[in-house]
Amino acid sequence: MIFKILRSKTRLITRHLHSASFIGKPTSVIRIIGTTVCIGGATAAIAYHCLSRNEVHMEAVGSAAKFASLSRYMADPISGRQMLDANKNDMKCRMEELVMRIQYDFCRSLEAEENFGKKFLVDRWERKEGGGGITCVLQDGDVFEKAGVNISVVHGNLPKGAIQQMRSRGKQLADGELPFFAVGVSAVIHPRNPFVPTIHFNYRYFEVTDSTGQRQWWFGGGTDLTPYYLNEEDAKHFHRTLKEACDSHDATYYPKFKEWCDKYFFIPHRNESRGVGGIFFDDLDGPDAERAFDFVSSCAHSVIPSYLPLVREHKNDPYGDRHRQWQLLRRGRYVEFNLIYDRGTKFGLYTPGARYESILMSLPLNARWEYMNIPAQGTEEALITEVLKKPKNWLNL
Amino acid sequence: MIFKILRSKTRLITRHLHSASFIGKPTSVIRIIGTTVCIGGATAAIAYHCLSRNEVHMEAVGSAAKFASLSRYMADPISGRQMLDANKNDMKCRMEELVMRIQYDFCRSLEAEENFGKKFLVDRWERKEGGGGITCVLQDGDVFEKAGVNISVVHGNLPKGAIQQMRSRGKQLADGELPFFAVGVSAVIHPRNPFVPTIHFNYRYFEVTDSTGQRQWWFGGGTDLTPYYLNEEDAKHFHRTLKEACDSHDATYYPKFKEWCDKYFFIPHRNESRGVGGIFFDDLDGPDAERAFDFVSSCAHSVIPSYLPLVREHKNDPYGDRHRQWQLLRRGRYVEFNLIYDRGTKFGLYTPGARYESILMSLPLNARWEYMNIPAQGTEEALITEVLKKPKNWLNL
Repeated sequence: MIFKILRSKTRLITRHLHSASFIGKPTSVIRIIGTTVCIGGATAAIAYHCLSRNEVHMEAVGSAAKFASLSRYMADPISGRQMLDANKNDMKCRMEELVMRIQYDFCRSLEAEENFGKKFLVDRWERKEGGGGITCVLQDGDVFEKAGVNISVVHGNLPKGAIQQMRSRGKQLADGELPFFAVGVSAVIHPRNPFVPTIHFNYRYFEVTDSTGQRQWWFGGGTDLTPYYLNEEDAKHFHRTLKEACDSHDATYYPKFKEWCDKYFFIPHRNESRGVGGIFFDDLDGPDAERAFDFVSSCAHSVIPSYLPLVREHKNDPYGDRHRQWQLLRRGRYVEFNLIYDRGTKFGLYTPGARYESILMSLPLNARWEYMNIPAQGTEEALITEVLKKPKNWLNL
Repeated sequence: MIFKILRSKTRLITRHLHSASFIGKPTSVIRIIGTTVCIGGATAAIAYHCLSRNEVHMEAVGSAAKFASLSRYMADPISGRQMLDANKNDMKCRMEELVMRIQYDFCRSLEAEENFGKKFLVDRWERKEGGGGITCVLQDGDVFEKAGVNISVVHGNLPKGAIQQMRSRGKQLADGELPFFAVGVSAVIHPRNPFVPTIHFNYRYFEVTDSTGQRQWWFGGGTDLTPYYLNEEDAKHFHRTLKEACDSHDATYYPKFKEWCDKYFFIPHRNESRGVGGIFFDDLDGPDAERAFDFVSSCAHSVIPSYLPLVREHKNDPYGDRHRQWQLLRRGRYVEFNLIYDRGTKFGLYTPGARYESILMSLPLNARWEYMNIPAQGTEEALITEVLKKPKNWLNL
């Protein structure tokens, strides 16, 4: 999530809600809240606050062209439609198309699981230094307590902190200005029902050119699952789907990236994993750009089949206050990982002027910390805790 | 809170609750939960969990000697009563007596505000490498949603990370082993009523001896307030009480340490302060040990008069869900500061084997994160937000 660090001094460009009736009906009316608000972020946010709190919705009819674009994406491409169409072979543009499509498909899939038509709020923002992003948030839904799906497409010169971090990871970068381009999609979904796990995924592409003209590129990303209660079948289905996405590209990927994921999503002070893992990789620059992109594309497209069956299976499971309290405690652990250890969050927040609302959308709506809450032996809460203490080989490889 | 980093591999020694009827009645019966549990921390915690969840209380009568000790302190001194009595002029022992007294007085004052006799749970733990601590937590009370008051008295050899951190702060420390002694009290109180502010304080003493035999010592600490709604009178009373504690020692202390506090308790990514400040200082080694101790003692003793009047004034204020939701959001900001920026928490958690339960007791019972919640202009929520954006000179100095 290195690209997170590069956002700063952003302005909110548009904000809207897509109505349920809009999908597939290009001539219907679209409800728009504060559309095309070309003002500073804070002002726009205040405007939104008043609007949403007062439930004032403006009825507006968009143009056919807008509908055509909106029917495939959550908002207009950051780089512009013309730019993307004119550079269909450029990896930067291909990756932007990919993350926009992934964002759209995933948001629509989640919305379809909601019971009362709750929709994602869409914030399209621009970055003063170049590029921008589209942040989609569905908050306080019936099925999803908080769901954030963000894409960002940013370019400019690498900030110092990012250069240091890249060099420490072994990148050979000449001195002088380092123009970069970064595009990625990142999502965290916190469902309401404690028997539906939280999912996180992030796929990204990075290009940097040094003063000698040498261009370097790489992909990174991963998908991981954080259940509140252990369901072995769910964990196996999730890992199996990721493994299938990996295997068609390289049989060594799944075992390697599964282990990397277990190592990365780990909370040292508690000596436990954040969840039951998944896959995680970074600095992927082989076997060639084409095949690396195909692999990343497969992974990104495997998110929905890995996760949506779990949502459908458990979203109506009965649960009590005990389960809710445990879910809130585990969400506290999620906050601990994200704020203390997650590289992307840390570097993002340490960058002056970062769009922290997009970085922190990964945090749950509610979380809880109790002193010394350790589940009694033999309980379902103890069972998941034990699994988190020792990463499992879910597919018996 | 540098001393936090030095705890590791602790074991829980005793855990008990003091009954309301006990105070001042040395012959009455004391209810003890899992007393003198000389087993590993995790096992003790599980035992506690079962006990507390089933509300099983063991009735037990302590000895007169135990009552005498408990009547002044929350638990037996970490260094032992004999050691403290035999070294009444040693600063380490004097500071241990001070923090124990502060802990006892503060816990008892808070308990007295509770409506249904809720008491602090007391965990006395020992540290394998030397020393230990007493962690007192009152959770889910009627007046206090979560209150943690911790003391620690630790010694051993300085870990590498701590040496680096001290050198970076300008301490001249020779190479080789660095035996140290650290003693401190640290507390965070999160009340239930959104009109009662959260308070944090921490006072500590540090000694380190290098291989040349040179001994260095210093004090550090501070008290700061985090209201959810602005009450100017409360903020002024709080600052006035701290100023009075400072002024009798050095007229330059309050303005200097007030500014230091504003700088320290600041959330850069939000460009706002955690609260309305107070005082903060570190590396205080003058004018001499005696006078530095007197100053720290005054500050520590000013906590109750600075805070308890605010609790009494507002604990029964009427409030609604809007106020509760705002309080939870602000508690999310508190979590952000503590987990991302607080030096003590960060260094503590990065130390393998740290007693994270004592470090993280500062986190609220409940916290909330909403995407882009920015209060509408003119509301009470906007008012406090504005104050947090620009530290105020509360006493018009």
